[in-house]
Amino acid sequence: MSYKIGVDLGGTKILVALADAGGKILISRKFPTRAADGLHNVMHYLTGSIEEVLSAGGVSRYELDGAGICVAGFFDTRFKTIVSSPNLPGWEGYPLEQELKERLRVPVLVENDASAAAYGEYLFGAGRGKRNMVNITLGTGIGGGIITEGRIYRGSGGFAGEIGHLIVLPQGPLCGCGRRGCLETLSSGTAIAREGRLLLETGGGTVLREIAGGCEELTASHVFQAAREGDEEAAAIINKAAYFLGLALAYVVNILNPEVITLSGGLSQTGEIFFEPVRRCLKETAIPPSGEMVSVVPAVLGEEAGVRGILSLLEQYLKEM
Amino acid sequence: MSYKIGVDLGGTKILVALADAGGKILISRKFPTRAADGLHNVMHYLTGSIEEVLSAGGVSRYELDGAGICVAGFFDTRFKTIVSSPNLPGWEGYPLEQELKERLRVPVLVENDASAAAYGEYLFGAGRGKRNMVNITLGTGIGGGIITEGRIYRGSGGFAGEIGHLIVLPQGPLCGCGRRGCLETLSSGTAIAREGRLLLETGGGTVLREIAGGCEELTASHVFQAAREGDEEAAAIINKAAYFLGLALAYVVNILNPEVITLSGGLSQTGEIFFEPVRRCLKETAIPPSGEMVSVVPAVLGEEAGVRGILSLLEQYLKEM
Repeated sequence: MSYKIGVDLGGTKILVALADAGGKILISRKFPTRAADGLHNVMHYLTGSIEEVLSAGGVSRYELDGAGICVAGFFDTRFKTIVSSPNLPGWEGYPLEQELKERLRVPVLVENDASAAAYGEYLFGAGRGKRNMVNITLGTGIGGGIITEGRIYRGSGGFAGEIGHLIVLPQGPLCGCGRRGCLETLSSGTAIAREGRLLLETGGGTVLREIAGGCEELTASHVFQAAREGDEEAAAIINKAAYFLGLALAYVVNILNPEVITLSGGLSQTGEIFFEPVRRCLKETAIPPSGEMVSVVPAVLGEEAGVRGILSLLEQYLKEM
Repeated sequence: MSYKIGVDLGGTKILVALADAGGKILISRKFPTRAADGLHNVMHYLTGSIEEVLSAGGVSRYELDGAGICVAGFFDTRFKTIVSSPNLPGWEGYPLEQELKERLRVPVLVENDASAAAYGEYLFGAGRGKRNMVNITLGTGIGGGIITEGRIYRGSGGFAGEIGHLIVLPQGPLCGCGRRGCLETLSSGTAIAREGRLLLETGGGTVLREIAGGCEELTASHVFQAAREGDEEAAAIINKAAYFLGLALAYVVNILNPEVITLSGGLSQTGEIFFEPVRRCLKETAIPPSGEMVSVVPAVLGEEAGVRGILSLLEQYLKEM
């Protein structure tokens, strides 16, 4: 038998999946990244995690056809190196593909995690059969992967799909990237929690305070819970986040005219309270023929989207070798 | 010998080019569209213009292999009909490809004019060899054509590349599309002229008034002339238009990570006084790896870009038939 390994290397967790020759995932396990321990330790954890999954599946290294790994951050597809990754500090310039190939002694394919997740949703998830689609991950940050004509669109350097850093409110909140008013600072889970805390700090949010306990513990989930219980201040925070997301989706729609936009990550599980105002703003701000034909739906593969995508890419890559 | 006809059908003019078997343009002529005369008359003018160019080239209809026509407006690539065209009122739902085929009795290919112009610049102009590029036309309005991996990217319905209707200033000036703050209302030649007139109407613009003569006659060119002569009020108008264009280009760059953006149309001929602030804003607002690798340059094919592009598309289309 021949097997493949698919890995999603994120800033918090390493997800490792073992697939059989037919692409079926046999085992998948999560490990902590411990990114703060630095590049060399994380590479050690990574190969250790792969060993552990192989061993749990009773598969020896010699039965492994290859490994696909998708990684958070800017991966330069021209030079096969990580350009920068806010979630993996110290990895700049690291030739991940080459290094992993030497450690595992099998063919290795590296891809950006947002692209791999979009490809997974396109092949197996909420974008199935939609040849032009975009998957947007709404979590701590906001990322995007683009499928055009049934293929991953990477752009000239591999940096396409940076939806989270579209500036939707010039002079808005300061972003981790150093700019102001990026979508990420207005529509991410982090942004919604920040607005909730601000509400408490300025003396408002009676309902929200009761639900969250206090400022320290407050998360985006608490804001959604308060809004669902009819709290208008919480609803206003969610509507504001949804408005800016809808505006940014209209940019994506005007430029790419996709059939579907799938939303993944934490905020994608919040239901109509969030999706309805997002769709409304999108329809109001996109150009009509494109805005009318696109649908905005939750992604369905959850945190497996990336490994499903990278395993399919790896299969194609091995065939073409 | 075998010949091809390439047509650029715009709201103001019809450009007709006759090309030989090698794709070389032998004759090209401009005719007025007279769009206000309505669909049936314009179709009559169009076929008449084609006849005239064939006759001027001493080419009979029987020597014609096919005709390619690019058209201003939303052309639905699924149903081969015009969805809407602000510049060609009354053409909604018109099956242009089919109708022209019946009139000319040769194979006909229809394409959106912005896509054809981008393809022309990609093959023969300022985007030559850049497999991911965008051409933006800055004239009365603002349009965009996208090339991904060396091919026209049309999106799901044929509506991709609508850069002119990215909302860059919510609650900004009213646009012809019914929305507010579209790029077109802030960075087009029309927008610059409007701001110039506003300056005169509010008692400013001494230099500009002298150059333009008065409010009625004022065009974008006058504003550029005043700015070149050191007028700070005129320079501020141009910098504002350039700022919003740079912001919108950053959206394009974050989403598509192109190698080059070519600017065509009237404003593309204004030189560094406009390009410098556009590039500056783009670099400041795009995400670094994509913003650093893209160049913004003037397109070089002028008004021939569309017919050059459509003639090449027609050649491929005829080969595949």
